[in-house]
Amino acid sequence: KVTGSRLWQSLMDLAKVGATPLGGNCRLALTDEDKAGRDLVISWFRDEGMSIRIDQIGNIFARREGRQTDLAPVMCGSHIDTQPTGGRFDGNYGVLAGLEVIRTLNEHKIETDHPIDVAIWTNEEGSRFVPVMMGSGVFSNTLTLEEALSAQDKAGISVRDELKRIGYAGTETVGGYDVKAYFEAHIEQGPVLDTENLPVGVVSGALGLYWYDVIVTGQECHAGPSPMSYRRDALKTSSQLINRILTIADSRQPDGRVTVGELDMHPNSRNVVPGRVKFSVDLRHSDKAELDKMHDEFTALLQAEKKEGIEIELKVVQKMPPTHFNKDCINRVRDAVNALKLPHIEMISGAGHDAVYLSRTIPTAMIFVPCIGGISHNEIEDARPDELEAGAHVLLNAMLAEAGS
Amino acid sequence: KVTGSRLWQSLMDLAKVGATPLGGNCRLALTDEDKAGRDLVISWFRDEGMSIRIDQIGNIFARREGRQTDLAPVMCGSHIDTQPTGGRFDGNYGVLAGLEVIRTLNEHKIETDHPIDVAIWTNEEGSRFVPVMMGSGVFSNTLTLEEALSAQDKAGISVRDELKRIGYAGTETVGGYDVKAYFEAHIEQGPVLDTENLPVGVVSGALGLYWYDVIVTGQECHAGPSPMSYRRDALKTSSQLINRILTIADSRQPDGRVTVGELDMHPNSRNVVPGRVKFSVDLRHSDKAELDKMHDEFTALLQAEKKEGIEIELKVVQKMPPTHFNKDCINRVRDAVNALKLPHIEMISGAGHDAVYLSRTIPTAMIFVPCIGGISHNEIEDARPDELEAGAHVLLNAMLAEAGS
Ligand SMILES: NC(=O)NCCC(=O)O
Ligand SMILES: NC(=O)NCCC(=O)O
Repeated sequence: KVTGSRLWQSLMDLAKVGATPLGGNCRLALTDEDKAGRDLVISWFRDEGMSIRIDQIGNIFARREGRQTDLAPVMCGSHIDTQPTGGRFDGNYGVLAGLEVIRTLNEHKIETDHPIDVAIWTNEEGSRFVPVMMGSGVFSNTLTLEEALSAQDKAGISVRDELKRIGYAGTETVGGYDVKAYFEAHIEQGPVLDTENLPVGVVSGALGLYWYDVIVTGQECHAGPSPMSYRRDALKTSSQLINRILTIADSRQPDGRVTVGELDMHPNSRNVVPGRVKFSVDLRHSDKAELDKMHDEFTALLQAEKKEGIEIELKVVQKMPPTHFNKDCINRVRDAVNALKLPHIEMISGAGHDAVYLSRTIPTAMIFVPCIGGISHNEIEDARPDELEAGAHVLLNAMLAEAGS
Repeated sequence: KVTGSRLWQSLMDLAKVGATPLGGNCRLALTDEDKAGRDLVISWFRDEGMSIRIDQIGNIFARREGRQTDLAPVMCGSHIDTQPTGGRFDGNYGVLAGLEVIRTLNEHKIETDHPIDVAIWTNEEGSRFVPVMMGSGVFSNTLTLEEALSAQDKAGISVRDELKRIGYAGTETVGGYDVKAYFEAHIEQGPVLDTENLPVGVVSGALGLYWYDVIVTGQECHAGPSPMSYRRDALKTSSQLINRILTIADSRQPDGRVTVGELDMHPNSRNVVPGRVKFSVDLRHSDKAELDKMHDEFTALLQAEKKEGIEIELKVVQKMPPTHFNKDCINRVRDAVNALKLPHIEMISGAGHDAVYLSRTIPTAMIFVPCIGGISHNEIEDARPDELEAGAHVLLNAMLAEAGS
């Protein structure tokens, strides 16, 4: 059985690196803080006798050898980079739950057939460098190494240069070898488990995600002298559209989601009728056919709103189909949860995670634990020690079953 | 009769000072460009033998003496400061139409009983320094001199310091003497005259104006993991509100106006449900009772939209009642228009102008001429020479009638 207090202590110790005023964390990918966090966690891995490998995109793999040589590793992990005003648990929990698994195995001198790897993936958050989920994206052949290394932050500094600067430009090829299974423990980042009072969720996949930009163009004019009938008000059209777009998921609960998160006005002046409004649309669903229907309804709404003097332009930003995790891996997690008699539900991740990319080439599943109030990507992100412990216990048992003990 | 080509040439010559790439003007108040514009126009006034006074807020008054000493001046004018991407006619036309009146009187050696003053009001636009319509605001006792002088731009530079720097910190007391009448010629800045193919509008007043900020607060959360039913989406409430608010003027055509010109999202991120939305509301009407009813309907909409978990806050930014210009001055303008047999309508200014403030203490009226497509506050602002000439001709005749010849 894992030791919750030890796991908690490590979470709190890591949270001291890049601590923020409101009790959160700022360890943007490949900054000095990220380096300090990496160094600290690696020192803990080494204390457990693990060997360390760094690949060319800076992913870190800590290995505990198995009884048998030449078997594919069973892997767990997550990320330790954070949002600019991030929390102490997002990502960090998955890595340190992996560390806690290793500590527990060492403590009880339990050997496994397969080696166990704990991974720290580079730049999951995508706050400093896009694309997001970079390290796992390269590992799963979704991104090329060159695309990733040449990504630049707003100051024009590249991933390549920052990896060198902080000493994490590894020499190992990224991926290209067999991994038996990948498990990722993560806070839910949503309200379901916390609201339903459940310590764990068995995660069977992730919602598909279609991202768009809509640009509505009318004509800006002075709010005073322009009679209503002469106006080509881009916000009037946009607010009607947004009202309708936000209902697209209503008949598709609980797995349909629609969000307008970004909206930019031009010229955004109190006494000017808006000439141009740009807004983002984020559609999600667990089922590809439903997601495609949502896409169709959305584009039909845009069509229906077209009128003389108003132009509506649609740009597709990204399309990621729904992810279905591996049945055997999901069963491993479910068996572990049942053996521990933990109240739980099966659920689908609403957000993208490293596991989503890795599942493209490795049998994968995830374990969710609640975060308080469902609040994440926020300095006040919080979680309960006993539930973090329960999730790590599930991770331990699933990994043991997979690695053979 | 005024000479349209001479007026046009002066407009084009002034437009060279602070010319912008798209054919517009950038002469922000009290910048080097504003100084250069002031110097140029003053040199033209001096060429006509006029005396120049500068008051403590930098308003410029060019005087052509009357036959009789000690009579109150008849005044016309406008401003020569512009928006950052402003046009060649907004403000400039009113000042240079005044100059053209003087040139015409000199040319034909016409004397008047009352002196004639042509005024250039400081900082009408309010782009660099708020409050807007600053010089005329102090002249009409709406603002105090101290409020105006201590206003600062975004860099923290004060009106007081900039007036000194450009040499326009005059010594004359601001206002405090009788003015017999004030006439301001201006482009309409809206589409009515241009659409109806009319060369002039007789302006009988200005719409009242109520400005508000609405702040809708929900809770931001991750767009992926948050089921629709858990959300407190500030944009959902805002877009419903905006839809309804934008109909408030529908039953009040043509004099009712409603505009949402500014909208700011927090945190404005593609995959975050908006936690806070702030937007402006601009209500206008020619009739105070109707404007107050619009206010009531607007606040009732905010009340009706209140729901669990969403906070709606209202801030009143400014309230300016409808302006009714002086009947005798309006008649002077109407008589001049009729004498010239110009097709015209009587209309109400949708925007605030120096004349709106001045009408609080001086008998005032305005003359509008079309701007092409109703486009103003834009580098592509344009107007037709023959209509600018017609407006100046009306100004000449109204001033002559008032000043006694
Ligand atoms: N976890 C996370 O924020 N992933 C980014 C992509 C998404 O919005 O799901
Ligand atoms: N002319 C002008 O833009 N005035 C500012 C106040 C208004 O919006 O009417």
